[in-house]
Amino acid sequence: MNLDAAMAAAIEQSEKVKGRTYPNPPVGAVILDADGQIAGVGATAPTGGPHAEVVALRRAGERAVGGTAVVTLEPCNHVGRTPPCVDALLTAGVAAVAFAVTDPNPVAAGGATRLSEAGVHIVAGVGADAVAGGPLREWLHKQRTGLPHVTWKFAASVDGRSAAADGSSQWITSEPARADVHRRRAAADAIVVGTGTVFADDPTLTARLPDGSLADHQPLRVVVGQREISPDAKVLNEESRTMVIRTRDPHEVLKALSDRTDVLVEGGPTLAGAFLRAGVVDRILAYVAPILLGGPITVVDDVGVSNITAAQRWRFDGAESIGPDMLLSLIPL
Amino acid sequence: MNLDAAMAAAIEQSEKVKGRTYPNPPVGAVILDADGQIAGVGATAPTGGPHAEVVALRRAGERAVGGTAVVTLEPCNHVGRTPPCVDALLTAGVAAVAFAVTDPNPVAAGGATRLSEAGVHIVAGVGADAVAGGPLREWLHKQRTGLPHVTWKFAASVDGRSAAADGSSQWITSEPARADVHRRRAAADAIVVGTGTVFADDPTLTARLPDGSLADHQPLRVVVGQREISPDAKVLNEESRTMVIRTRDPHEVLKALSDRTDVLVEGGPTLAGAFLRAGVVDRILAYVAPILLGGPITVVDDVGVSNITAAQRWRFDGAESIGPDMLLSLIPL
Repeated sequence: MNLDAAMAAAIEQSEKVKGRTYPNPPVGAVILDADGQIAGVGATAPTGGPHAEVVALRRAGERAVGGTAVVTLEPCNHVGRTPPCVDALLTAGVAAVAFAVTDPNPVAAGGATRLSEAGVHIVAGVGADAVAGGPLREWLHKQRTGLPHVTWKFAASVDGRSAAADGSSQWITSEPARADVHRRRAAADAIVVGTGTVFADDPTLTARLPDGSLADHQPLRVVVGQREISPDAKVLNEESRTMVIRTRDPHEVLKALSDRTDVLVEGGPTLAGAFLRAGVVDRILAYVAPILLGGPITVVDDVGVSNITAAQRWRFDGAESIGPDMLLSLIPL
Repeated sequence: MNLDAAMAAAIEQSEKVKGRTYPNPPVGAVILDADGQIAGVGATAPTGGPHAEVVALRRAGERAVGGTAVVTLEPCNHVGRTPPCVDALLTAGVAAVAFAVTDPNPVAAGGATRLSEAGVHIVAGVGADAVAGGPLREWLHKQRTGLPHVTWKFAASVDGRSAAADGSSQWITSEPARADVHRRRAAADAIVVGTGTVFADDPTLTARLPDGSLADHQPLRVVVGQREISPDAKVLNEESRTMVIRTRDPHEVLKALSDRTDVLVEGGPTLAGAFLRAGVVDRILAYVAPILLGGPITVVDDVGVSNITAAQRWRFDGAESIGPDMLLSLIPL
């Protein structure tokens, strides 16, 4: 197996644990034996557990000797809750280490240098764009900015409406699109809505499996705004934890969530507008259904733009079909 | 060359003449010689000129003998302004004829039967979906319904706005997307706007080439509505013909355009809403830019839907990148 294929397998591993490794990054690793065959795979275990390399090395056992470790992130070189991965790789006797993204964290960095000095062949940057834009995007953003990565997700008709004129919105998008949203919820650290959404839709904001049962990982539910919500609101039920933040200021919200990495904003037009005007949205996920609704309820109201020259400019970084719907992904220009 | 590849070449030919064959369909033809090599290609000439098969046969000359004619539409069997294509094919001595779509016009149909009876091998349905949904879509619609095919085209931000709050809209989409619109205008028979668009934007509504010059074919410009437009409006300039229809009823508009096949509605939210409520839109082309605008100016206002269960339901039949923008295409469910 070549390094690109092994990295693709490592990425796949990492995506399975997204949302469950906090505060560690969701990393994937593949150990190839000396013949280039997969000897073990692994991903970051939940907090306090072993890192991806260690999981994969354990599975590879003796077959790691003379082999290659393929990891989505540069192996760490520090003692945290677990010993450095660099030590584990050296002890296992791998001949080479390939990784996608350099560790930006000064405390943990330096792994590649130490491995190289110990005679291990290093290949950096394998699948770097796929990893940096994919499974590690949110964690890297957090390392770089100190703030959680914010994804604004909305479901809309082709004409940009999030509900019909009478407020009804269940459902704009198809079952496969909604399943995709639940999968993303399960991988997020927090879901944010405004009190307006709680009043209008009374959502539970949980991550559910296609059979309706609760996913293993439930993100923190966050309700933002100055109105008081009913104690009977479903968002306060026992299925997950909930934080109510009495503010309309997105910066205050992010401060309250500063220990989180991956935040999903699912609010209505008012909350979305506030986050967009504040410039704190890092990705837009638009689930667009092939329907027309018209009427006054748009996905966002005021984004702080009065003239076309002042438009908020983004770029598409993906467009895919999900059932009958389209998922458009945008990132800052 | 196999039949599918030859049909793709025939489709390409037909797309080059779209908009210039009225009232004939834009057909493409490829003549393969007895060895399967391309001996000649052709497309419908402007009205009164030869049909695609005849153009391609002339180019193929003697090489057509024992060869295969690959045509997007069943060869015609009637004397119109030109003799039947079936006669030309028989005279040329082709051994086989492959076509995509059967001629729905009872006057012209029967070509395949006559060819078959004369001993020519017939293959029907090659590339049928690509042709019926592509170059012949509008013409087939006209044959089936007696009405012109209506495409509603709009340019919008990701949040469904066709202008910023102050009405400015030049430009929402990129130069490549606008060039694509001009290409489609040049292939259309008529472009319809409302008086509102004339007042707001004073467009010329011409089809232009990337260098700014006028395209060879200019569609009829149609202004719809009860307000009187200024005699100085650019839409009335000498660059093409213009029809002003003093009505707000889309059915009246289509009646006035009943001799046309391919009508492009480029109107603002009011006109688009009227056409959608009347149920006379056959395709939606949404040029979506990766920008956010917010504010009150949406691509369409009232589509006659009050509750989500009454949503106008379509289906995506295409999504492609054009420069930084996305072009989403929808057809009725």
